[in-house]
Amino acid sequence: MLEGIKENYYELVHYLQENSRLGGVMGILHWDQEVIMPVGASESRAQQLGTLAGILHEKSSSPEMGKLLDKLSQADESEFSSFEWCNIREARREFDMATQVPKALVTELAELSSRAHLVWVKARSENKFSDFAPVLKRLVDLKIKWAGYVFPDLEPYDANIDLYERGTTQKDITPIFEKLKAELIPLIKAIEESGYKPDAGFLSGHFPLEKQEALGRKISEDMGFMFDQGRMDVSVHPFCGGSHPTDVRITTRYRTDNFVESLYAVIHETGHGLYEQGRMQEGRDLPVSEALTMAIHESQSLFWERMIGQGKQFCAYYLPLIAETFPQNFEGVQPERFYEAVNVSGPSLIRVEADEVTYPMHVILRYELEKGLFDGSINVEHLPGIWNAKMKEYLGVEPPTDTLGVLQDTHWSGGAFGYFPSYTLGAVYASQFYQALIRAKPDMEKQIEMGNFAPVRKWLGSQIHQHGRLLSVPALVKQVTGENLNPDSFLVYLKNKYRQIYRLN
Amino acid sequence: MLEGIKENYYELVHYLQENSRLGGVMGILHWDQEVIMPVGASESRAQQLGTLAGILHEKSSSPEMGKLLDKLSQADESEFSSFEWCNIREARREFDMATQVPKALVTELAELSSRAHLVWVKARSENKFSDFAPVLKRLVDLKIKWAGYVFPDLEPYDANIDLYERGTTQKDITPIFEKLKAELIPLIKAIEESGYKPDAGFLSGHFPLEKQEALGRKISEDMGFMFDQGRMDVSVHPFCGGSHPTDVRITTRYRTDNFVESLYAVIHETGHGLYEQGRMQEGRDLPVSEALTMAIHESQSLFWERMIGQGKQFCAYYLPLIAETFPQNFEGVQPERFYEAVNVSGPSLIRVEADEVTYPMHVILRYELEKGLFDGSINVEHLPGIWNAKMKEYLGVEPPTDTLGVLQDTHWSGGAFGYFPSYTLGAVYASQFYQALIRAKPDMEKQIEMGNFAPVRKWLGSQIHQHGRLLSVPALVKQVTGENLNPDSFLVYLKNKYRQIYRLN
Repeated sequence: MLEGIKENYYELVHYLQENSRLGGVMGILHWDQEVIMPVGASESRAQQLGTLAGILHEKSSSPEMGKLLDKLSQADESEFSSFEWCNIREARREFDMATQVPKALVTELAELSSRAHLVWVKARSENKFSDFAPVLKRLVDLKIKWAGYVFPDLEPYDANIDLYERGTTQKDITPIFEKLKAELIPLIKAIEESGYKPDAGFLSGHFPLEKQEALGRKISEDMGFMFDQGRMDVSVHPFCGGSHPTDVRITTRYRTDNFVESLYAVIHETGHGLYEQGRMQEGRDLPVSEALTMAIHESQSLFWERMIGQGKQFCAYYLPLIAETFPQNFEGVQPERFYEAVNVSGPSLIRVEADEVTYPMHVILRYELEKGLFDGSINVEHLPGIWNAKMKEYLGVEPPTDTLGVLQDTHWSGGAFGYFPSYTLGAVYASQFYQALIRAKPDMEKQIEMGNFAPVRKWLGSQIHQHGRLLSVPALVKQVTGENLNPDSFLVYLKNKYRQIYRLN
Repeated sequence: MLEGIKENYYELVHYLQENSRLGGVMGILHWDQEVIMPVGASESRAQQLGTLAGILHEKSSSPEMGKLLDKLSQADESEFSSFEWCNIREARREFDMATQVPKALVTELAELSSRAHLVWVKARSENKFSDFAPVLKRLVDLKIKWAGYVFPDLEPYDANIDLYERGTTQKDITPIFEKLKAELIPLIKAIEESGYKPDAGFLSGHFPLEKQEALGRKISEDMGFMFDQGRMDVSVHPFCGGSHPTDVRITTRYRTDNFVESLYAVIHETGHGLYEQGRMQEGRDLPVSEALTMAIHESQSLFWERMIGQGKQFCAYYLPLIAETFPQNFEGVQPERFYEAVNVSGPSLIRVEADEVTYPMHVILRYELEKGLFDGSINVEHLPGIWNAKMKEYLGVEPPTDTLGVLQDTHWSGGAFGYFPSYTLGAVYASQFYQALIRAKPDMEKQIEMGNFAPVRKWLGSQIHQHGRLLSVPALVKQVTGENLNPDSFLVYLKNKYRQIYRLN
């Protein structure tokens, strides 16, 4: 019996590896499309991706897969290692999600999100929310229906969140976000009203692309990114993609009048890249080794970008190199001044341009709107008004147009509801992890000040990257930090840092 | 009835489009691997390609495909347009080739060619033919067996040729090659013995890569390569790849001490690229629009490289730009001198470095060896001796090692027998096409001298590229040139050109 069950497992492994490789292939096609594909190829590329998506869906929802999983589900968990059981569990989840939704709904969702994206692009450019509203409403309706099929025991919005942040529900998120709101709104106001403004003028100037590129590459390499198993290129929006842990591809974008934005994009994407390159050696073509959730992925990029890269020690260590790279701007600049300049905070209209203090408010606003859309307490037509009112309340600014307000993000147009919370959960986890690291290695900041990042990378690797999907998020966070999801470290970190920078004490 | 048959055809079209898109995806993965993939990703890339190849094989040999083709084969050709019938015929050929060979043989061939490649790499680097001989022998045996299954009516070597050059057999090739031998051996000797040697010294020097790159890109664009539907990059061996007629990717390689090699590689690959970009607008994801055979593809690259690029008018038109690009080398160089320098001819050991006069002898030698291996008149063990004797006889040179002789090419190690003739058939077709073009447009060379390549490109497009696979090679050649495969134009062209350059009259 055990013999037979193990054979079933090995058959499953074969299927899963094939699917993982197809997923990797799609990763390369996406990367190619964003980075180097000739513009004229967009239609043929869409068809290639469509064909692959179809094959992948067919394979992960095939009757053979179903039969195999049924046999494996009858076995006892104890007959498998936790590694094996994780693969079975992941395959089951994938199969159920792919097969429980009626085909008509799948098709309508796919077609509608594809059309909605075009509608959104046009509506945004013409500042006409009313053009986008009907498709948005339909998307919400379909996603509520979808939730009923896939996770009938969850509230519809929780089901959507589960896609990105499995096991986390509004019950977990709402109190965290309420606490953040309560403490961050006053902090944002205090920063705004502070008489002290860090001088960041020296960060503007002319910064040749080749020099920026070399600087970014050096810092990424110092952080531990392996360029023999990855690449760094240019795309319109920075991202981390690729096809395999041995083929991790990060991107950034360059502006000649500002190097900080690009540099911190490199650091952010390197954080994602280190997670991928750091996956366990065994089972790299199996779900067990994959990154856990969106928030944990984001915790890694934010850890490096914010906890490390925007920290005092990092700024102090790299200032000489940066000053050597851009001598005309950095003459006489002291580390403290550089540190303050990269940490300037202030309310703004656009989420992706927000700093670490104001960013959570952008996310909380969207979370509250999505919640309302899914529980029926908010009508789509009222979104612009509510958006603007909340912006005023949370950040003290009001979008002059919907293009700079409710129409700014691409997520909803693609049917991605429940994604936004991951950004801020990631920030919260990042600061919890940082606290745990400091407790485990009290001389860490001294190491960073000497440019030694290996201990940080190794700690993240052994504590997080190596575990793949073996543990749930709550179990992992508990194991690493000794506590549950908790906004306190994040709030203490923000308040200490920004009170000092803005002389608020 | 007609209704039903047409429905079957549309179903077939759907399958064929899916396969074409998967083929395009493999094209991008190959390109990526050769051009930009991180070295560490080679194993995962091999697995991705293996997975895709498996899916493609499964799909093109599936029982559903078989049933569909059986139904369509019962229909009358007259019920379909020639476009439609071509797709049916191509699908049938593909299906038969995929299904007529026992799986055990397919597997053994795949495994052996993969292993043989590694054995060959090592044997070549160690100059040990005896290490390669046993796998080569086994490969020939398996390819003879394979031929018996796939094309039982053809001689085994003809069956192998048919893979690359369908419809062309030894009966067609041998007399052509005999004639070439009879006329080229004396020409090569006469060139060798001529007291006049063109001065090509000014082609050596220092040529910055960026300048070479800009020059190549400009000339490729002048030829008509559409960079919004293609790319030009760098790889170890120049090639033309990509994923679709709207995504055609050519490569070259640069040496700072020689720009001519790289430039002519760009012209050669652009010739291939124009064929791909010039495919018919309809059915771009169907076999009907695909390039006809290897020799016809090579005829396009050689047409541009040799008939146009190494011609007097081209050299005269581009000399000013080249002199402006590399002023220190080209001061006072006259067009005639530049033309002679890029057409220097002389025997050499390595096929890929040979010029247009000596190249056919390298091909004919290999053809004769392959013929002998397949009809049993040559034993694998005797290849090095026969190789060296033929080199002496045909080119007057003898390889000092097997590395520089019988071990130089990768083709046999991958089980590709019957591929070599295509290179020289391509050269023959190229000169036949060129004669036809001159007849059709007598002022063509004047146009080229003014840098106007559009008429050439348009003529090749309408005469060749647009026809895809609608016609057989003999029918196409007859339609374009009014004659059959015929080495006379090629020989007249070579003799006129080189007698003049080497002052042989």
